[in-house]
Amino acid sequence: MTKRIAVIGAGPSGLAVLRAFESARAKGTEVPEVVCYEKQENWGGLWNYTWRTGLDEFGEPVHGSMYRYLWSNGPKECLEFADYSFEEHFGRPIPSYPPRAVLHDYIAGRVEKSGVRKYCKFNHAVRDVEWDAETEKFTVQVKDLVAKKHLSEEFDYVFVCNGHFSTPNVPVFEGVEKFLGRVLHAHDFRCADEFAGKHVLLIGSSYSAEDIATQCHKYGAKQITFSYRTKPMGFEWPESFSERPLLTKVVGKTCYFKDGSTAENVDAIIFCTGYLNHYPFLPDDLRLETRNRLFPPNLYKGIFWEPNPRLMYIGAQDQFYTFNMFDAQAWYARDVVLGRIALPDQTAMHADSESWVRREEALEDAEQMIDFQTDYVRELIEATDYPRLDVDEVARLFKEWEHHKVEGILTYRNRSYPSTLTGTVAPVHHTPWMEALDDSLEAFLNQPSQQAAE
Amino acid sequence: MTKRIAVIGAGPSGLAVLRAFESARAKGTEVPEVVCYEKQENWGGLWNYTWRTGLDEFGEPVHGSMYRYLWSNGPKECLEFADYSFEEHFGRPIPSYPPRAVLHDYIAGRVEKSGVRKYCKFNHAVRDVEWDAETEKFTVQVKDLVAKKHLSEEFDYVFVCNGHFSTPNVPVFEGVEKFLGRVLHAHDFRCADEFAGKHVLLIGSSYSAEDIATQCHKYGAKQITFSYRTKPMGFEWPESFSERPLLTKVVGKTCYFKDGSTAENVDAIIFCTGYLNHYPFLPDDLRLETRNRLFPPNLYKGIFWEPNPRLMYIGAQDQFYTFNMFDAQAWYARDVVLGRIALPDQTAMHADSESWVRREEALEDAEQMIDFQTDYVRELIEATDYPRLDVDEVARLFKEWEHHKVEGILTYRNRSYPSTLTGTVAPVHHTPWMEALDDSLEAFLNQPSQQAAE
Ligand SMILES: Cc1cc2nc3c(=O)[nH]c(=O)nc-3n(C[C@H](O)[C@H](O)[C@H](O)COP(=O)(O)OP(=O)(O)OC[C@H]3O[C@@H](n4cnc5c(N)ncnc54)[C@H](O)[C@@H]3O)c2cc1C
Ligand SMILES: Cc1cc2nc3c(=O)[nH]c(=O)nc-3n(C[C@H](O)[C@H](O)[C@H](O)COP(=O)(O)OP(=O)(O)OC[C@H]3O[C@@H](n4cnc5c(N)ncnc54)[C@H](O)[C@@H]3O)c2cc1C
Ligand SMILES: NC(=O)c1ccc[n+]([C@@H]2O[C@H](COP(=O)([O-])OP(=O)(O)OC[C@H]3O[C@@H](n4cnc5c(N)ncnc54)[C@H](OP(=O)(O)O)[C@@H]3O)[C@@H](O)[C@H]2O)c1
Ligand SMILES: NC(=O)c1ccc[n+]([C@@H]2O[C@H](COP(=O)([O-])OP(=O)(O)OC[C@H]3O[C@@H](n4cnc5c(N)ncnc54)[C@H](OP(=O)(O)O)[C@@H]3O)[C@@H](O)[C@H]2O)c1
Repeated sequence: MTKRIAVIGAGPSGLAVLRAFESARAKGTEVPEVVCYEKQENWGGLWNYTWRTGLDEFGEPVHGSMYRYLWSNGPKECLEFADYSFEEHFGRPIPSYPPRAVLHDYIAGRVEKSGVRKYCKFNHAVRDVEWDAETEKFTVQVKDLVAKKHLSEEFDYVFVCNGHFSTPNVPVFEGVEKFLGRVLHAHDFRCADEFAGKHVLLIGSSYSAEDIATQCHKYGAKQITFSYRTKPMGFEWPESFSERPLLTKVVGKTCYFKDGSTAENVDAIIFCTGYLNHYPFLPDDLRLETRNRLFPPNLYKGIFWEPNPRLMYIGAQDQFYTFNMFDAQAWYARDVVLGRIALPDQTAMHADSESWVRREEALEDAEQMIDFQTDYVRELIEATDYPRLDVDEVARLFKEWEHHKVEGILTYRNRSYPSTLTGTVAPVHHTPWMEALDDSLEAFLNQPSQQAAE
Repeated sequence: MTKRIAVIGAGPSGLAVLRAFESARAKGTEVPEVVCYEKQENWGGLWNYTWRTGLDEFGEPVHGSMYRYLWSNGPKECLEFADYSFEEHFGRPIPSYPPRAVLHDYIAGRVEKSGVRKYCKFNHAVRDVEWDAETEKFTVQVKDLVAKKHLSEEFDYVFVCNGHFSTPNVPVFEGVEKFLGRVLHAHDFRCADEFAGKHVLLIGSSYSAEDIATQCHKYGAKQITFSYRTKPMGFEWPESFSERPLLTKVVGKTCYFKDGSTAENVDAIIFCTGYLNHYPFLPDDLRLETRNRLFPPNLYKGIFWEPNPRLMYIGAQDQFYTFNMFDAQAWYARDVVLGRIALPDQTAMHADSESWVRREEALEDAEQMIDFQTDYVRELIEATDYPRLDVDEVARLFKEWEHHKVEGILTYRNRSYPSTLTGTVAPVHHTPWMEALDDSLEAFLNQPSQQAAE
């Protein structure tokens, strides 16, 4: 009997799995039946923007954490699919830092082209997964949100691709429950315009803090205060910005910090305190428990759930690499499923993953982290027929990007990089990022003069 | 073997169930073992305020829909527990419209006193309920949120008491995804201060719209626009208020309505569009599907799931009556479980509930609805030993309250009513509601002079 595979989520990770199997099928290989359950009404994961926050129209937690005016925060050359270049998709080279809609178009373009939409069941939320050791099958319970009915199906393999930047981590601070303004997590941030003229406090010192603050500034916020737990970001911020140590308490609209300093008249507090890896549909014995890290424990090759490697996680780690790393994982996992790659026994798998975990724990800075994830991706790619990706060049671009951010946190998105696939250096965008207020695909792709003419 | 009962939720409805069984036990009756699972860390349901919105620290949907500065919107004399008067709890009479914290204190006081805390498992979220027709047992799957472990237990009866004012109903309007301000549902509204100086649009024409608008006004909002689907509320609003028909589209910060009128410079849109009865932990064959109505279908006596009456819903209907209605239901259900009341067969149950459903469908105005729910509560109370509640007097108070609202939507909360239990007329509050900006229990219970002295 044909084997069956369930894929949970049709974001970039889930789509990588669909694409990997489809690519094998196109080459004449017999592949298992694949069913992808996606709780949103379309694919693209986080890149599929929603204005909703909190719970959606079906009472499900809203998946989207992206906001209006979000642009790629890394060069697109670092995430380019090795089997589908940006030039192929757009018919010409485009600038290095596209806005969200452009990346969504690119992600969707590849999978539309490969015809995998037929495997997707949209508006289907996975509720429960169970493993039966006797039958060696997973039972997957799914809610068809539109029909309001549950279905239950059996599978031989399950791919967990639900992302881990959707369930907010929201710590508590003294007095926050009486703050006389708005409190929200980055997950619920949507529209920077709302904060024009405001004093915004952002807790956290990573990508969300950095990007939401610069967005707010771009769209007119009056003042930005950051509060960090471990260390400040240390960029050369505009004058209206300041970085403070951790928040200790809130009284009215005043915020107190660990160094005794205060921020007055704060209008909004945005928790940019990261996300939880959250798998509410998995039972205790199949569920990964991890913080956001480059190598979560108990995942052989960062993919296979060691106690039961028929359960696979794609994209469960922290990410420098994204789309092409998910591809590398999906191709590797596919080849295990197809019997092309054999897994060692559990002890050997664990010894291998533990060595990565230990290596991660010794990393000291961003460059080392980039090298770490580069090595990881390289190892996966070398084992399969995923088109050769020049990961050393990608690593070089990542490091250049880090330097560009230090050189100018408001200007780095004006830079250009060469494609590792085509070699073409990206054109400079028609408008510097700080002045590009319209983030639509049309505005990005067309010269302003062209837009006016249309 | 002792029978086992699971209660899902420790809000006023779940607590009514605990109290009902405890009251029988205190009178010497042998009662089943009761386990109450509550996903929050304390009891009180909606009355247990949280500053959080969206998802909580465990990634669970935040239950709370109440906000700071929320005061009872009906006289406390209409919801008084027949077995525990406000005078008994507070040691003296208190005004008729208490703020949230005072009502939470009252709800909690009764259950603390009756010693039922030991039956509650807090931070336990029910995930799944299944019925096995052979063993005649429910299997209930629960996640212990702190230990991060699932447990599975068997029960003979299940009480569904998870409330139905927590999962927002959020319709979509053209252009709302590009609105240049904040969009939220009443469920996520917390702090009126945030809207000081703003123009707020509220969609809906029921309690949430009415109350959130008056709160915003009280704390300094500049302008209020309502948008109704069916009919305007028609109260004598302050000058800065206006009522418009349904929103047709949003462009930038301008809102367009069905009558062709517009509202300009809208800063925030608050969806006061009600809630969904939402039971994500119930399978298709046990799950009530209903809109918010006085008599949901397929529930005998508004409680028993007709296809399997061992599953009982408390508080699943729209509510004039609240705390004492949940009591009336819990006492009735308890007596069925204890074998004191026999249920008719399914056909007879359904015929009975259908007659209520049809009667509800013919109701024409608020007074008729009050009479309807009064008849319902009376029928339940008369069948059990729940202390006699003078429901005709409660109905009279509800109607008076309706008139008081018409006489002054900003002043009705200054009124006083007699307790149907003690006959005492509530004292007038020390501060008119519009000037009572501090909604704490201390501020409410103490005269301002007393507060200053403390
Ligand atoms: C604010 C933000 C900005 C980012 N910006 C960038 C960027 O500029 N560049 C970059 O490379 N990366 C960025 N990322 C990283 C992002 O994680 C990846 O780009 C990518 O989206 C991850 O893909 P994924 O498929 O693993 O997860 P997601 O994109 O999160 O997709 C997961 C999918 O699973 C579905 N799902 C979840 N639960 C269920 C369920 N129970 N049943 C069915 N379906 C379910 C979801 O609806 C979703 O479609 C950003 C992340 C965030 C939060
Ligand atoms: C904004 C607002 C204001 C209101 N004001 C008034 C008022 O002034 N006067 C009045 O009489 N009524 C008021 N109500 C009506 C309110 O519905 C009732 O007062 C009462 O809270 C209903 O009690 P309940 O126990 O049925 O539901 P809830 O109070 O909602 O309690 C349900 C409980 O179930 C728990 N729960 C949910 N899901 C799970 C799960 N899966 N596992 C475990 N536990 C779970 C929740 O955490 C919660 O504690 C108001 C309602 C709202 C929304
Ligand atoms: N395209 C874009 O522009 C864009 C924008 C936003 C986000 N993203 C992506 O989104 C993903 C998530 O980024 P993220 O910044 O949300 O999460 P993150 O990288 O995991 O960072 C979490 C931050 O929260 C802090 N934090 C956690 N718990 C805290 C606590 N209790 N108190 C104070 N601080 C606490 C951490 O501080 P410590 O350092 O002390 O641990 C860290 O600074 C990344 O992949 C990122 O690339 C992209
Ligand atoms: N203590 C307090 O002060 C207080 C405050 C707020 C709420 N509450 C309580 O909370 C509960 C819920 O009240 P609620 O007002 O949130 O809900 P509700 O009473 O169910 O009312 C829902 C409202 O939303 C409207 N609506 C629904 N779908 C819509 C759509 N697609 N477009 C436009 N309008 C739509 C309905 O209009 P139609 O009339 O056209 O159907 C109705 O006006 C009640 O028990 C109430 O007493 C109490």
